[in-house]
Amino acid sequence: MDASLEKYMQEKRQVIEQDIETHVCNETIPENLQQSMLYSLTAGGKRLRPILIYASYETYAKTSNRVRKVALALEMIHTYSLIHDDLPALDNDDYRRGKKTNHKVFAESTAVLAGDALLTQSFHLISTDTELTDEEKVKLITWLAEASGPTGMVAGQMMDIEAENQDISLYTMEKIHALKTGKLIGFAVQAGAYLAGATEEQLKHLATFSHFLGILFQIQDDILDITGNEEKIGKPIGSDVENNKSTYPGLLGLDKAIEYRNYYLEEAIKALKQAQADHYYLQDLTEYFTERDY
Amino acid sequence: MDASLEKYMQEKRQVIEQDIETHVCNETIPENLQQSMLYSLTAGGKRLRPILIYASYETYAKTSNRVRKVALALEMIHTYSLIHDDLPALDNDDYRRGKKTNHKVFAESTAVLAGDALLTQSFHLISTDTELTDEEKVKLITWLAEASGPTGMVAGQMMDIEAENQDISLYTMEKIHALKTGKLIGFAVQAGAYLAGATEEQLKHLATFSHFLGILFQIQDDILDITGNEEKIGKPIGSDVENNKSTYPGLLGLDKAIEYRNYYLEEAIKALKQAQADHYYLQDLTEYFTERDY
Repeated sequence: MDASLEKYMQEKRQVIEQDIETHVCNETIPENLQQSMLYSLTAGGKRLRPILIYASYETYAKTSNRVRKVALALEMIHTYSLIHDDLPALDNDDYRRGKKTNHKVFAESTAVLAGDALLTQSFHLISTDTELTDEEKVKLITWLAEASGPTGMVAGQMMDIEAENQDISLYTMEKIHALKTGKLIGFAVQAGAYLAGATEEQLKHLATFSHFLGILFQIQDDILDITGNEEKIGKPIGSDVENNKSTYPGLLGLDKAIEYRNYYLEEAIKALKQAQADHYYLQDLTEYFTERDY
Repeated sequence: MDASLEKYMQEKRQVIEQDIETHVCNETIPENLQQSMLYSLTAGGKRLRPILIYASYETYAKTSNRVRKVALALEMIHTYSLIHDDLPALDNDDYRRGKKTNHKVFAESTAVLAGDALLTQSFHLISTDTELTDEEKVKLITWLAEASGPTGMVAGQMMDIEAENQDISLYTMEKIHALKTGKLIGFAVQAGAYLAGATEEQLKHLATFSHFLGILFQIQDDILDITGNEEKIGKPIGSDVENNKSTYPGLLGLDKAIEYRNYYLEEAIKALKQAQADHYYLQDLTEYFTERDY
């Protein structure tokens, strides 16, 4: 990874992690519930979604505190979705990123409630943000609910569960990814640019960009499940095949999947150019997403 | 029940049930997820919380559509909390109001996601409400998140689980109820009155009123578990004792619990008077809550 990008991501991570401490520990939340929320919020996430908000904002405006709360809110939504996804009734995962999942450390009941708490708290963070106007808050809450609710991420999770052990088409698989992971990535890019004052035209091109970025992100995940290093990616190689998960290499073969990835990278960069957003960290992040080995 | 109150509640229920159809069926939600959300939303709830919003609003202003979405949003939050509460990992209930619980009809995974979806959708309903100003939306979302999140209802659920099979004090029991059910009741009363233009002074007295109303509601539930009619209340008599749940009659004895109830009723009506809100449906509802036999 480019040294400048690495430094940038590290700086943003520090801000995010500081904000987690401040905003989860300062509330009058029952001890056990708070511990459970904090455990998953600090369990080694890469913070890619909030970093995307910062990078998108800083493409069109100077660094400021205007995106801090939204960035944290998005990380909370992402974290809640992981906690609920890992539950025995859903993916039944005991480990994530090499650490025990929330319900394996806390009770399953606590994990359900910690997820509910993080989801609710994310909207509260935005609605009480002193850096934003009411109009901005309302727009962000609307977008975030659309991206994460039953027409967005939750819809994707539902379809993903229903597709388990089924032969699905490339079209269906792409639709699931677009909802399950693409929607929050799209929110990150839109929210940052909107708060920075990007034009309607720029936001439109960024929506196209986000669509490609979401797919890129997923293809690389799938490729790493075949070509990756177990220690680096934090889960056993080949686990997708073992779990009968539909993947790009599974449907297209590895070579074709890599071709697809490179094609989508070109398209993503093209859309960034049209949004006058190339040559910023948003472009570096896109290239990093595509080339990452973990 | 007073015939006029019965008609009032019936009318509001019709509006709420119509709004459920409109706002859950109109979205592009995966079929199974939508069915699961609708199942619990239409499983025979008494709609007490949304009716409270209407009654509180109509104490200070003429009937209008300004509270319809908020009322529905609150019913969605209440419904999500029941779905998650009934899960095997939490209360493990197979029946609620004489009907199978969500996870017994749908998969447990679907029930988790339907709860998540309803919670998220409730904020979206408020943020996209065309009847409200941005300032009103932001205030309502802030209050709703505080009432339902890790400093409100979810905190109460957490403490309730931790108190299971424990001897707890009256103080702790009241604190759990205040969070678990009182907070949403308080939200209903505050939201309605605020949107109707009630003064700060009136809102303050209504907060006191809601506090007593929440307790009243709970005491009567506990009393009915001893003196009620199984068919009417939709669950076996004595189930609290059987489940080792702390109750007012359990801690105080039945006679004293009834005395408490009557005392709190007087206090609630007193607060209503101070808020210039007596002699309206809010008072009728309070008396009904206290005397109900189901």
